[in-house]
Amino acid sequence: MNFSSKYLERAVEEISNLPGIGKKTALRLALHLLRKERGEVASLSESLLALKEKVNECSQCGNLSDHSICEICANPARNEELICVVEDVRDVMAIENTGQYRGLYHVLGGVISPMEGIGPAELNIASLVSRVDQKPPHEIIFGLGTTMEGETTTFYLYKKLAGFDIRLSAIARGIAVGDQLEYADEVTLARSITNRVPYESSLSHDQNSKA
Amino acid sequence: MNFSSKYLERAVEEISNLPGIGKKTALRLALHLLRKERGEVASLSESLLALKEKVNECSQCGNLSDHSICEICANPARNEELICVVEDVRDVMAIENTGQYRGLYHVLGGVISPMEGIGPAELNIASLVSRVDQKPPHEIIFGLGTTMEGETTTFYLYKKLAGFDIRLSAIARGIAVGDQLEYADEVTLARSITNRVPYESSLSHDQNSKA
Repeated sequence: MNFSSKYLERAVEEISNLPGIGKKTALRLALHLLRKERGEVASLSESLLALKEKVNECSQCGNLSDHSICEICANPARNEELICVVEDVRDVMAIENTGQYRGLYHVLGGVISPMEGIGPAELNIASLVSRVDQKPPHEIIFGLGTTMEGETTTFYLYKKLAGFDIRLSAIARGIAVGDQLEYADEVTLARSITNRVPYESSLSHDQNSKA
Repeated sequence: MNFSSKYLERAVEEISNLPGIGKKTALRLALHLLRKERGEVASLSESLLALKEKVNECSQCGNLSDHSICEICANPARNEELICVVEDVRDVMAIENTGQYRGLYHVLGGVISPMEGIGPAELNIASLVSRVDQKPPHEIIFGLGTTMEGETTTFYLYKKLAGFDIRLSAIARGIAVGDQLEYADEVTLARSITNRVPYESSLSHDQNSKA
């Protein structure tokens, strides 16, 4: 591209470094910002810097927080006997949005993926083991995705934690609520039959059934 | 969404104000920035602010520039007798990329669109008329898009400029280079026949045929 302004060129370059944003989209965004008030652009600019400077990982669970211990870990009303292991902070947000879980979390920061060069050492696995060692909970729920990498990571964690006297469980796989059986894939359908549950516990959750 | 950090929430809010970026994409971008070095985030943040503070419109043609007069207007090698009117700085960039145009530009900053509340007063039309009045060029090329709004704007400009002793032309519409006739729409095909050109001038451009 043939830029008439080096500041525009630099901004387009920086914006297009973001994942999934090409040069044309970056140019469109830069021209949009140029039409905005200075205050609005300054607000965006500051929020990005504050994000990097003020947000850190909770020293206990790895969730993102503005403090050294996140709000969930610091909340005395949460059930310390229950830890749900998830891949990402987005999973914490998704589970929190359900309003059905009152335990704590452990955020791995990814899943084991030899293809991308991510081994157990790159993830918050050692911190999970030492956390469990210091104060064993009653139960650990594996809440990782059903991808090849997710399943591998769950199995790795299972092996690491099997020596502790802790109940180890995995979130249920099955037909999504609202889905038709005929459109479900075979593996999911098979699992939903193998892991069938008593009818009473399949009824919709109320406040009393919170984990 | 249920954010565990107010700085993360604010950054996602700010990023999702950008056009075409929803909350989920904004969160993905914010988490990407969190994984980057502080210097990289600072560089992006500064480039956005510099964009707003250092880039302005050329006082003659409306193109974006780091100076009060843009590089194209300031270049004595450009043909001052030729002004191409375009909608947007992206059109300037596209024409400059062809390397086939040596005249000047006038950037309207949009097209007349009553639906979006954009009338002639919102565009750089008065500045075009006074520019032409002060120093009439030999020719003005209308280089606006073929949308309803583009055609309306071109007609409006034509009415405004018809009183001057200036040649008024429009960029050629026709079958794109590399396209098959059978796939062209009827209007384009009809125009390409009506506005046919002598065979010699349809041959591929060389350096001598530059405008």
